[in-house]
Amino acid sequence: MFSEERISNLPQDVLNECRQKASFDWRKLKIFMEGEESIEFCNRIAGLLQNDPVFDHQWQTLTQKQAEEVTHKRWSKLVDYDVFDSKHGVPLNLKKIGDFVKTVEYYDAGLAIRYMLGSISVAIILMSQGTAKHKPLVDALLQNKIVGCLCLTELSHGSNTKSFQTEVTYENGELVFNTPNMESIKCCDFCNTRSRLRAANRQQSITIGSVGEIVGSWNGVSTGWMEFRNFRTSVNAMLDRNCNISSDGTYTSKFKNPNLQHAAVLGALAFNRIAVIMKGAIACELAAVIAIRYSMVHGTRRQFGPNQHEEILLPPARTHRMFPILASAYVIAMFHRKLNDHFNNYTMRVVQGEQTKILAELAKEIHVLSTVCKAVSTWMGNRALSEARLACSEHGFLKSSRLNDLRDDMDPSQTYEGDNYLIVQQAAYYLMDMARKESPDSPLGSVQFLKQKIDNFSGFTEDVLTAYKWLIHYLAREGIRCVQSSVQAGKSPFYARNNAQMYYIQPLATAFAEYTMLNWNIETSAQAPDDLQDVLRKICTIFALTNLEKYLSFLYIGGYCVGPEFGRTIQAELFNKEDELSGDAISLCDVIAPNDFLLHSILGSSDGRVSERVFREFQIASNDRPEWLPNLIGTLNRSKL
Amino acid sequence: MFSEERISNLPQDVLNECRQKASFDWRKLKIFMEGEESIEFCNRIAGLLQNDPVFDHQWQTLTQKQAEEVTHKRWSKLVDYDVFDSKHGVPLNLKKIGDFVKTVEYYDAGLAIRYMLGSISVAIILMSQGTAKHKPLVDALLQNKIVGCLCLTELSHGSNTKSFQTEVTYENGELVFNTPNMESIKCCDFCNTRSRLRAANRQQSITIGSVGEIVGSWNGVSTGWMEFRNFRTSVNAMLDRNCNISSDGTYTSKFKNPNLQHAAVLGALAFNRIAVIMKGAIACELAAVIAIRYSMVHGTRRQFGPNQHEEILLPPARTHRMFPILASAYVIAMFHRKLNDHFNNYTMRVVQGEQTKILAELAKEIHVLSTVCKAVSTWMGNRALSEARLACSEHGFLKSSRLNDLRDDMDPSQTYEGDNYLIVQQAAYYLMDMARKESPDSPLGSVQFLKQKIDNFSGFTEDVLTAYKWLIHYLAREGIRCVQSSVQAGKSPFYARNNAQMYYIQPLATAFAEYTMLNWNIETSAQAPDDLQDVLRKICTIFALTNLEKYLSFLYIGGYCVGPEFGRTIQAELFNKEDELSGDAISLCDVIAPNDFLLHSILGSSDGRVSERVFREFQIASNDRPEWLPNLIGTLNRSKL
Repeated sequence: MFSEERISNLPQDVLNECRQKASFDWRKLKIFMEGEESIEFCNRIAGLLQNDPVFDHQWQTLTQKQAEEVTHKRWSKLVDYDVFDSKHGVPLNLKKIGDFVKTVEYYDAGLAIRYMLGSISVAIILMSQGTAKHKPLVDALLQNKIVGCLCLTELSHGSNTKSFQTEVTYENGELVFNTPNMESIKCCDFCNTRSRLRAANRQQSITIGSVGEIVGSWNGVSTGWMEFRNFRTSVNAMLDRNCNISSDGTYTSKFKNPNLQHAAVLGALAFNRIAVIMKGAIACELAAVIAIRYSMVHGTRRQFGPNQHEEILLPPARTHRMFPILASAYVIAMFHRKLNDHFNNYTMRVVQGEQTKILAELAKEIHVLSTVCKAVSTWMGNRALSEARLACSEHGFLKSSRLNDLRDDMDPSQTYEGDNYLIVQQAAYYLMDMARKESPDSPLGSVQFLKQKIDNFSGFTEDVLTAYKWLIHYLAREGIRCVQSSVQAGKSPFYARNNAQMYYIQPLATAFAEYTMLNWNIETSAQAPDDLQDVLRKICTIFALTNLEKYLSFLYIGGYCVGPEFGRTIQAELFNKEDELSGDAISLCDVIAPNDFLLHSILGSSDGRVSERVFREFQIASNDRPEWLPNLIGTLNRSKL
Repeated sequence: MFSEERISNLPQDVLNECRQKASFDWRKLKIFMEGEESIEFCNRIAGLLQNDPVFDHQWQTLTQKQAEEVTHKRWSKLVDYDVFDSKHGVPLNLKKIGDFVKTVEYYDAGLAIRYMLGSISVAIILMSQGTAKHKPLVDALLQNKIVGCLCLTELSHGSNTKSFQTEVTYENGELVFNTPNMESIKCCDFCNTRSRLRAANRQQSITIGSVGEIVGSWNGVSTGWMEFRNFRTSVNAMLDRNCNISSDGTYTSKFKNPNLQHAAVLGALAFNRIAVIMKGAIACELAAVIAIRYSMVHGTRRQFGPNQHEEILLPPARTHRMFPILASAYVIAMFHRKLNDHFNNYTMRVVQGEQTKILAELAKEIHVLSTVCKAVSTWMGNRALSEARLACSEHGFLKSSRLNDLRDDMDPSQTYEGDNYLIVQQAAYYLMDMARKESPDSPLGSVQFLKQKIDNFSGFTEDVLTAYKWLIHYLAREGIRCVQSSVQAGKSPFYARNNAQMYYIQPLATAFAEYTMLNWNIETSAQAPDDLQDVLRKICTIFALTNLEKYLSFLYIGGYCVGPEFGRTIQAELFNKEDELSGDAISLCDVIAPNDFLLHSILGSSDGRVSERVFREFQIASNDRPEWLPNLIGTLNRSKL
């Protein structure tokens, strides 16, 4: 029987005073957020890493060669652990996989990516797009007998999959691959060999190489490129769940409606994109934990509280920089869990062979939510890490703060799995389409509100959702109008849409993402035990007000509100809620923080002993006499001549 | 005789078509911006580096040891070059120093810092705060016979210089230094030895060590810490231009008014802070050059122009992301030059012994402008590099794009020389003080407008400065009101000011910085040759509208404007100006771009050949077979058991 005592104790140290102020039991909230099973499984993984010397880590900069070597060693260990019991044929458990990746990702994002892309990510695409003949490949991938590799991007074509130029032709039962030009060279993650494999026969070859150095922990992942020259493979390699090539080379789709086929492909690709939403949550979690624990020790002022007892206070300006990050961490993580559940259900239905219109609509809705929330969560995650770095001031740029490295690891997620600026457009066009429909097709109900009638502001209530709904209605309507008027003025559709992007399409998409995340969180929070509801409601309100504030000028320009009341109240309410939450901040961090080993930041440890840890690192670093010292003396002496 | 032909030609290549569209002569603008003498001197420095094998550079990640070693070697070369002829006793030329640092900084920010902090930065403080007896030290520093080291920050005290705890006591003609606790250990840049120097005598010691790994090019700079135990030095070491210690240990100031003394210290410290403003300009320049040249090749759509001739078009959404960065690069750089001139004049007056009230007011005004513009320019520079990275999509996170490395180099400037969040407060308090005065003391005239009466918006003109002035008046007035009402409600002054920070104090300071930079640029642009005025005006307008837009919600809440007109017009005007500037974009980049060797980005070269350069890097990277390959095969085989 699981109980709250199974969650390890926290140090009785400088942050103790803050912990005693909490209005809730942090263990209880952790169980509500993550579930007992996940907590136990994640603890097991964390224990494996912490007790294995291969996973010992410091903060020194590694060359690419060193980074690849150590990432490989650790990957090899993860394979040996076989935490999913794949070698005994235990079937895929998507929830467990998510927990595993999240735990490894706290430790090192590069390692997590290398593990996933070499195995499960590819297996899931084969499962949902392939047929029985691909089963041995799926098994081999899941059991790490082979290493998978995903190659979508081409050298000059990233997010727009329709512009890919790699050519595949059918010849006598074989597929022949060609790279027509330099710009269509494939770029792939985790190419498992960097040397050239060009076959002896000059007529037929596949060339594989490394893309060279890349940023952050990605530098250890072995990202490569691939060029085809008449490369031949059996037609059986084709993923043929939804299509077929007959012996005379005729391609046929199994879907009567091509939209349904497209939706099925989109659904399959959502897996990775949903995993990237989690990366946004992780970035906000680590940023909040490190910056808030640090700020409690370094950014506070002590003053006498109401009972003449000295107490720690976080100044309001700092609270205002930190708590929105904390709120994002909670809201994104909870939204991610729910969307992931929907995706897992969807995948099961696909694997069971369902081919219905409602399933295609579900695929489309999951696709839209995964793209737009991937964009918003990675933007938030990146900004959170930047802000946390600044909040830790000069200590933040010590490598041992880990904040810059975390941001370098996070940064690429804003442009992979679709460049954020591009994928939010797709979501906005979907919303603009839905806004015009009589009854929007929305199996998850995320766009039903587009048919509601929303009144202008008439007086402040806590219902920020209304302002969000008004805003989304307004931006969809004005976006349509802006595109139409450009087209009527003789501009190309491409130009017209592009012209509407900054002021309509992009805010439309981001507002929709934030609204949906918020809405799902409010629903989930309502199911929490009574003594957790208050703190969860505050988190939702801080998330809502912080984000809504970004659109204040739209709400004024569009006429939702007039005069100071609405804007001032948003700002004042946000300060109030942040103030109310300040006693809970450290315990809210404790709920989402990985253990100190995984967190790996001298500024964010659970004991709050910042100066001691900084000074200890100073002492470790101070042992070597640099080899260039004689040369320095030589230079100075030359100057004396 | 200098002529435009002396500026080297640009490649006739893929960007040629864009260059032919320019409405102005890029060489002429370069000469107007930088001056012939600076261009020639900078070209000379660039040539020295480019032709010296020690400065050959690739993009590989270096360990800290490698980074320190190579930075040291290059530093040693810079010393040997002796570009200022210091060894022949040529006196300090602050303008030349600025040009030198800027050129070296394009190449490597860490190298520039190591050179400056070890020599000129320390010399300038000695010159303006010391007396004749420090002259030999100043000479030795400028001639690189010794290496200087600046130690302000303490382990737990950064930007708030008043909280420093290092103790200095006077004993028998000597100063005795003590570090009373761990939190007051000094952190310093370029400690030229990392080994412990603890003297044999246990009663008296100075311990010096390295702070360990830090971020970006700072990892090669040898940042260290210092701890004193009864460390003794002659009282002659004290910088005594403005103070004195008598033989009985009595400390006296030479200023009758302590405010004047404080102002003199602030003035001396402004040198480094003004140099950091230039870092913001450099960051925006490199971000704009790399992202706009890249976008012209990779982000454009070709379409038929009015004469049925295919032409390159940058889509408006991309223009809207890039051109504000380009405008910032110009506006910050031009502002920096002007502020630097004022500072140089100020320093000359100090060195000549002037001690007047007007000089103290000038010191204060330069201090305020240097702090607030340092904050704004480093925030802008950092955001610019992040945005440029995103604009280059998946190519942006190749190390050879240089964008992430540039951001890592730039990042610390947001918290050193004063944490931006803290130093903007000082500027805001100064403005709030000045707003209450009958006639503000402002030798440079930067706050005179606080006494003007500004009307609310009544119809759009191009005069965005009026809206800015209204905004600054409003924020100063409301900031005062907000602080007062908190104090009246019984809050501490610290809490009251902190509470006003996010919505009044910080926007007040940033709006003032932007307004001043804009204002000075408009003045300078008006002195340009006629055929340059149009393009310079557009740059100012884009800077003005982009930045003013951030405050739209304040302008609505505060009642400057009502209804859609003002907000919509700001947005539409911005789009118009960006559209008008698009033909000039590449030539504007050419004006501010360092040569391809210094720029060192495969995405931003002047020939625009992006794909070829990316592919060439791919091929260079692809030669090694990794050592861990046999281990990979072993792991896969184990999985097969």
